[in-house]
Amino acid sequence: MGDKGVNPDLVKERQKCTFNIQELVHLIDGGEQATRDRKEVEELVLAIKDIRDKVPEEYLSHKERYENAVRKTVMMVEVLKDHALKHSSFDAYKPSNMYRIQSGIIKDISPFMLHMGMFVPTIFGQASPEQMSEWLPKALSLQIVGTYAQTELGHGTFLRGLETTATYDPNTEEFVLNSPTITSYKWWPGGLAHTANHCIVVAQLYTKGQCYGVHPFFVQIRDLDTHMPLPGVKVGEIGPKLGFQTANNGFLGFQNFRIPRNCMLMKNSQVLKDGTYVKSKSEKLTYGTMVLIRVMIVADAAYEIGRAATIAVRYSAVRHQSKPKADQPEPQIIDYVTQQHKLFIAIATSHAFRTTGTWLWDTYSKVVADLGKGKLDQLPELHAIACCLKAVCSRDASSIVEQCRLACGGHGFMLSSNLPTIYGLVTATVTYEGEFTVMMLQTARYLVKAWKQAVDGTAMTPTVAYLVNYINNTNRKWDNTPEGIITGFQAVAAGKIKEAYESIQRHQKAGNDYEDAWNLASVQLVNASEAHCRAILCNVFWTEVQRLSSSISAPLAQVLRQLAELYLTYWTLEKRGDLLVYSSISKNDVAWQQQRYEQLLALIRPNAVGLVDSFDVRDEILNSTLGAYDGRVYERLFEEAMKSPLNAEPVNSSFHKYIKPFVEKSKL
Amino acid sequence: MGDKGVNPDLVKERQKCTFNIQELVHLIDGGEQATRDRKEVEELVLAIKDIRDKVPEEYLSHKERYENAVRKTVMMVEVLKDHALKHSSFDAYKPSNMYRIQSGIIKDISPFMLHMGMFVPTIFGQASPEQMSEWLPKALSLQIVGTYAQTELGHGTFLRGLETTATYDPNTEEFVLNSPTITSYKWWPGGLAHTANHCIVVAQLYTKGQCYGVHPFFVQIRDLDTHMPLPGVKVGEIGPKLGFQTANNGFLGFQNFRIPRNCMLMKNSQVLKDGTYVKSKSEKLTYGTMVLIRVMIVADAAYEIGRAATIAVRYSAVRHQSKPKADQPEPQIIDYVTQQHKLFIAIATSHAFRTTGTWLWDTYSKVVADLGKGKLDQLPELHAIACCLKAVCSRDASSIVEQCRLACGGHGFMLSSNLPTIYGLVTATVTYEGEFTVMMLQTARYLVKAWKQAVDGTAMTPTVAYLVNYINNTNRKWDNTPEGIITGFQAVAAGKIKEAYESIQRHQKAGNDYEDAWNLASVQLVNASEAHCRAILCNVFWTEVQRLSSSISAPLAQVLRQLAELYLTYWTLEKRGDLLVYSSISKNDVAWQQQRYEQLLALIRPNAVGLVDSFDVRDEILNSTLGAYDGRVYERLFEEAMKSPLNAEPVNSSFHKYIKPFVEKSKL
Repeated sequence: MGDKGVNPDLVKERQKCTFNIQELVHLIDGGEQATRDRKEVEELVLAIKDIRDKVPEEYLSHKERYENAVRKTVMMVEVLKDHALKHSSFDAYKPSNMYRIQSGIIKDISPFMLHMGMFVPTIFGQASPEQMSEWLPKALSLQIVGTYAQTELGHGTFLRGLETTATYDPNTEEFVLNSPTITSYKWWPGGLAHTANHCIVVAQLYTKGQCYGVHPFFVQIRDLDTHMPLPGVKVGEIGPKLGFQTANNGFLGFQNFRIPRNCMLMKNSQVLKDGTYVKSKSEKLTYGTMVLIRVMIVADAAYEIGRAATIAVRYSAVRHQSKPKADQPEPQIIDYVTQQHKLFIAIATSHAFRTTGTWLWDTYSKVVADLGKGKLDQLPELHAIACCLKAVCSRDASSIVEQCRLACGGHGFMLSSNLPTIYGLVTATVTYEGEFTVMMLQTARYLVKAWKQAVDGTAMTPTVAYLVNYINNTNRKWDNTPEGIITGFQAVAAGKIKEAYESIQRHQKAGNDYEDAWNLASVQLVNASEAHCRAILCNVFWTEVQRLSSSISAPLAQVLRQLAELYLTYWTLEKRGDLLVYSSISKNDVAWQQQRYEQLLALIRPNAVGLVDSFDVRDEILNSTLGAYDGRVYERLFEEAMKSPLNAEPVNSSFHKYIKPFVEKSKL
Repeated sequence: MGDKGVNPDLVKERQKCTFNIQELVHLIDGGEQATRDRKEVEELVLAIKDIRDKVPEEYLSHKERYENAVRKTVMMVEVLKDHALKHSSFDAYKPSNMYRIQSGIIKDISPFMLHMGMFVPTIFGQASPEQMSEWLPKALSLQIVGTYAQTELGHGTFLRGLETTATYDPNTEEFVLNSPTITSYKWWPGGLAHTANHCIVVAQLYTKGQCYGVHPFFVQIRDLDTHMPLPGVKVGEIGPKLGFQTANNGFLGFQNFRIPRNCMLMKNSQVLKDGTYVKSKSEKLTYGTMVLIRVMIVADAAYEIGRAATIAVRYSAVRHQSKPKADQPEPQIIDYVTQQHKLFIAIATSHAFRTTGTWLWDTYSKVVADLGKGKLDQLPELHAIACCLKAVCSRDASSIVEQCRLACGGHGFMLSSNLPTIYGLVTATVTYEGEFTVMMLQTARYLVKAWKQAVDGTAMTPTVAYLVNYINNTNRKWDNTPEGIITGFQAVAAGKIKEAYESIQRHQKAGNDYEDAWNLASVQLVNASEAHCRAILCNVFWTEVQRLSSSISAPLAQVLRQLAELYLTYWTLEKRGDLLVYSSISKNDVAWQQQRYEQLLALIRPNAVGLVDSFDVRDEILNSTLGAYDGRVYERLFEEAMKSPLNAEPVNSSFHKYIKPFVEKSKL
């Protein structure tokens, strides 16, 4: 894009950039080819006639908004399907691609999201080969539209507590589905309300008078032709939410609803014709999908922080405010160090999470490959890492997106900035697919076990090996280098795990059973998991940036090192209290880190706009009056406002209907 | 209310309560009579026929929602006006009462909010007696509807940078208003878009070829009869936002728009007929309104935290989840210590902010009374306290409301929980009426000055007297009592102010001028202000609770002391890093505080529901499926969902319009 019509402040910022933006774009995408593929799909979808709204969605009613989202998704899927067929690849359908491209056309979440995000993967992961060959082609060509129904009104975290029942009837060779209570209604699945005609239902399996726990079933819920709910099915939407406005989240209940026996997903466990239950060989196999989705949440967090940072940094380069010096013009607000403090950590965190997400993905792939060879022993560690990374990355992402929004002052509060919508998307990830505290305590279970092993001198898995150093007091002493900081964070984690462990023991000695003692120590256990996760994030980010240095240009390597160092320094200052307690950092070191932090802000300042340009989010996908590439902030704010239906008439009817009669009466 | 139809868990919780709930209700309201008055107004408004929506607002389009808000506000104002006339008091019109009652009828902000909140107070504070006698009766009887237009598209924080001009023309004895640029358009005033026919416009005053800075003008913008914008006025709405959906925020521009000379508010400065400018005697007099609004923000923060806590605590008493013990039922989630950690600090913070708000109000009233006697010397201290309290309380309130929302898991994400709407209201206060960082740096200016005075041995104002102890090293040493903690926080504040001050000096010595040095030290300066504010909050809360103890019953005094101690202990643990650096706290003390914190959670646990019942928010004003008094959580969630217009038809039209044709085509 040329500089014509671009805000002059942004032109100047771009001239200052010290590295090659395209090089970083490719690095973020995962290679030049990946960039080309992404751009091709973007171009294809955004070029569809009428896919962009004339009246912005947020002016529509809830119902109109849903209908419009269906309209646009169908247009998009049509094009993506042709593209996929042409390339004999379903890559364009990849959930992450779907997720990203949809923000360009619906801003929010498509009602078809869980079809590709959960319905298809579940069939893929848990259906038998015969089931797969029957269902998968229909699902991929959207002849059937599905979703995934697990959570119930009264049951989220505790899977074993689900109440929906699937009782096998050997006479008809059918399962009978029932929702015995109000709390047993399925609640939350995206697309379930009015979009899907099928879904995977997770229910308590009963056969021969015995309950075998929760299992997945493939269930048709609406007539394929009329789309009417089938008899015995009660389905509808759960109402509006903070975000996910167009996700069409639904509820679902069954009354003696019958499905054929072979609708149970039978890759793992099975029910035979006569009702005999055949147990899965390994329950650990279902870990896979869950971990995969948590990996994706980390990657999406990186992406959304990137979008928010793009908006806030560009706006801060365009916006001028206050006059600290009487003889000089109002400075760009990005030149206030407090503003840099809010924004540059956002850029750094996006890179930290992307890097860690890739690392987690590689770890996951390796573990899955080993699973194929029958090696299951790495699963608990993978599970522990995925839990705390999912929790911490989603929560950090929420805070950082809000920080970016607040850094844009009042204008960040406008929906047209797109920052509130991004927040709605990101904050949801703190809860779904594993609630924050629950995830942290899952990791804590692993850490407490690892601590005992470390004390016993048992061999340790890599991500907790630092516990041994801590116990043997062979930790590197604090020094003001990235490696020193990482060791410091590991000491914090080890110290907190130890204390939480001792706290459990103390509560047990006081007469509590283990679970009560665990509960009493749980605030400390969550803190220990967080410390463990910080140590991993810092370690992976710094190590990967170092490793990369040899394969990228020197200017880019320098910028990435600055970002990684900023990330480590920022968290050193945030967690100085913990470091003072558990590591050998001194008060002078803290003061040194404070000064180093301010130096790093100054070093990054000239590249700030170049760095967000490198996230390479097209204007249509950024969807922001404040963040567009050309920086025409005020013009866009005005243009967007003028689209309001309220602005189509000089006088709103409510004046004549309500205000004027009241005033007339007052005068009497 | 009886226990019939009340969730049995809540019945049990209420039986456990150790104090008299009504006593606490009166304490929070400010006396028995105040409770009665509040309830009378609530009853009056909520009894209005058709004032409650059949279809919840969030299903309507943006435009319909506005029209409905006007309808309901007019009905409400009519009743409140009669009530006020009957009692010859405009108390029912009090912004805080208006603010609270409106959540029962519009959930959000009324488009008339700034009429009573800013328009009337500005006339009251800045109009001459003649102007007041002309405008005030009309405004109070709503014969004219007004708002307050200060912020512009390009100018918020920096008042002196406003671009709207008011140029005096002595020939016609008129001011000519102009909006010379796009950034000069007024942007944000509530009710400005389509509701108000008048507003206070803040503009640069030009007379006799000279600019005298910004002044307020009383401007009619719409025809009283037709409501058409007057010629030369461009007015409309700015579009939807994260919150304030029905506030009808607007933009406003002028083109050679003429108003009579006496439309300038002339209590302070004046322009004579011939164009001579007469300067105000004291510019400090306008401080008053600004401080008043900041006091109100602290009080509203307490109120909104109370609402969020009510919802989250009641829900957590009703919700059961997980099964830590195989032989026992799923526990109430409020029995998880991690949940108590999230919720009880919310209850404590509401009391801390209410107490501090009252203290700030009393301080304000005293200063205003002294102003009347010509004493201006307390103003800077009041300003400094009001700035940091506004900033910290609004930000803490946002975090805590979000914490309450996230503590309700997925259901907290539903608009029907009302938590997202409360967040929208609260997070806005972080920005408006003084942006967070700007406020913190205002306080920092005062603190740096105070530090110099303390070093010089000049007499100190009360809220910074602790600086002298710090310098003379006559601070009380750390001990694990509330008083010890307060002294510890004062040491943190003093230490951070000192370091920020030295950082400025260091940057100056390195060749920076004062403002650049200030900017380079600004992250530290913000931290210093926050520490100062924490010390005030802890000190005021604890001191006031101690003072109260003698005038309330022993059981209530005990509960309030527990809450105050929880507040202090929570912040000790949060800020342990700072305390370790700046106070004489030891690592053992930190461990002791951790244990004490867990004890306090256990002590407060039996009173949790009683404490939120004492916030005494009527179901209609709480507006929450999760938080109603009877705890019928799941039933209400379902009932609310069934109100969705999407649920009125089994098949949405989008299936036949978009999905079916696509599927048919796929089959070919």
